[in-house]
Parts: sequence; structure tokens; C-alpha cells
Amino acid sequence: MIVLGIDPGLKNTGWGVIEQRGSHLRCLAYGCITTETGRPDAERLALIHREVMAVIDRYAPEEAAVESVYFSNNAKTAFATGQARGVALLAASTLAVGEYGPGEIKLAVVGAGDADKRQVQYMVRALLALPHDPEPDHAADALAAAICHVNSRIPASANGGRR
Amino acid sequence: MIVLGIDPGLKNTGWGVIEQRGSHLRCLAYGCITTETGRPDAERLALIHREVMAVIDRYAPEEAAVESVYFSNNAKTAFATGQARGVALLAASTLAVGEYGPGEIKLAVVGAGDADKRQVQYMVRALLALPHDPEPDHAADALAAAICHVNSRIPASANGGRR
Repeated sequence: MIVLGIDPGLKNTGWGVIEQRGSHLRCLAYGCITTETGRPDAERLALIHREVMAVIDRYAPEEAAVESVYFSNNAKTAFATGQARGVALLAASTLAVGEYGPGEIKLAVVGAGDADKRQVQYMVRALLALPHDPEPDHAADALAAAICHVNSRIPASANGGRR
Repeated sequence: MIVLGIDPGLKNTGWGVIEQRGSHLRCLAYGCITTETGRPDAERLALIHREVMAVIDRYAPEEAAVESVYFSNNAKTAFATGQARGVALLAASTLAVGEYGPGEIKLAVVGAGDADKRQVQYMVRALLALPHDPEPDHAADALAAAICHVNSRIPASANGGRR
């Protein structure tokens, strides 16, 4: 099974694709979609949507994993992140999408819900046998979401079903 | 010129289409896209995107107007609204999109930046010579955004240019 993980943000949207064969996990690709501050929101969101669609076309994941809850108290940041998550979820809406809280993802990858970004990067590297820590941290977080999804194996929401 | 106004929200996304000929404004249509609470976000966002696209197909607006700033202090609400605005902006990203603050829209329509929803509905009805107040208020707010856009006549962001 191939799973796409997404860590959405208006400025940086991390993505990572992993393949599961039995108990073996393999990283197929990861990256980060960066949009230019100061450009119109519509343009930035269209870029995020287009690039996520391109990743889905290229790696044909059956399922996707996206962080579900935003814990910031900053409404402005939450609004911006929400916009990015909206178009990322839209791009993935033909797949079965699992939504996971940040603590849930850290627990699945590091074994502690309050792990910091460095620990997540380190464990993602170890679990996927990568030659170095995945950079930037947005990509590591996206890979962590995908690993969490594979480990839980509960298709949380069958949006359009699996392909 | 035909302008689409959008008042985005995860539960209710108001929309309204107006036509300008010289100083005359005419309402072509308005409505509200309502999504079911409890359904997965991806499904709700796909519905909003699909319906906004359908409105654009049907009325062929050249430009769009969307509220720009979210003033709530509630990060959770801001995040949900952000998601909806993301897919609405994406749907409109082939048009020239103007973004206007809530105060700016109220000032343009009612003449006071702190007008309440009833005043907005009343003035939208008067300016478009509608037989009754536009309902729900989400639709009235969307029509108000379109009127604000026509009155300001500044294509704030040429996302893909005019058709």
C-alpha cells in the first residue's frame, strides 16, 4: 500500500510518500511546497493544490494522512493554515483520507505525544532507513503522518473510497 | 461585467452573482452551499469547491470578490473558515479575485463599517431592487462583497487575469 502524508501550511506544505509491504516501510519520495509571501492567497492556494495533485499523479497513493487539529491560539495563523489544509484535503479527496492529531502522530512515530521536531525527524529517518534526517521539518512531519496512518491502519474516512 | 461574491464558511458558504451595466446593478442569482456537520472535512470541502465551480460555469463571472480577513479570536473557527475559504478561492482562481475586509464591505454597502447583518441585508435588497431581503445572511454578505467589488473597481489581484 502506498500512503501520502501531508503537513499543510500556506507558506510550507510538507509531503511524503511511503510504501508498506508487510512490516517493511519504504520512503518513495518527500518534499515541501513553498509559496511566496505577499502573493495573492488564491495564487498560493492554487499552487499548493496543483503540486499536491502532481504528487498524487506521480506516486498513485491509495490513501492519505493529514493532521486533523490545529492547536495554535493565533486565529490569523489558524486561518492561513486552514486555507492550505482545505486545498490539500480537496486534492486528496479522491483517496481514503485519515486525519490524525499532532499528539497521535508523535506517539505513533516517537512513542511520546509531546516529542519535539528533532525527535520526529530522527525517528522518521530510522523507521524509513533514510541516509539522513528528512528536511525541512515539514516533510518529516508529513512522512510521520503517513507512518502513523500505516501503523493505525484505520481508514478514518472513506472519501470516495480506495482506488 | 458579471461579478461573483463569496462569503466562505465550512458549514455555510454564501454566494451571489451580480451584473453591472453602467451605474445599474442587477442580481442574477444567489444562494448558500450548506454542508453537513459530522461529515469528513475532505467531503465537505469537495462539495463547496464543486458547487462554487458550478456557479462559475453557470453564470460565467469575469471577476470575484471574497472577504479577506477573519477577525474571530477563536482559532478553531478561524481554521474551519480558512479551509472553506481555501477551496472557494481555488475555485475562483481562474478569475480576477478582489479581497475585501468585512469593514470595507459594510462601508461600501451601508456606509458604516460597523453595520449589523440586518442593515447589510436591507441595503443589498435596496441596491439590487430585490423583492425581499436576501436569505440567508451568508448570501446577503456574498452579494455585499460583489457590490463592494463593483464599487471599488480595483481588481486587487489579477489571478490569471480577466477572461
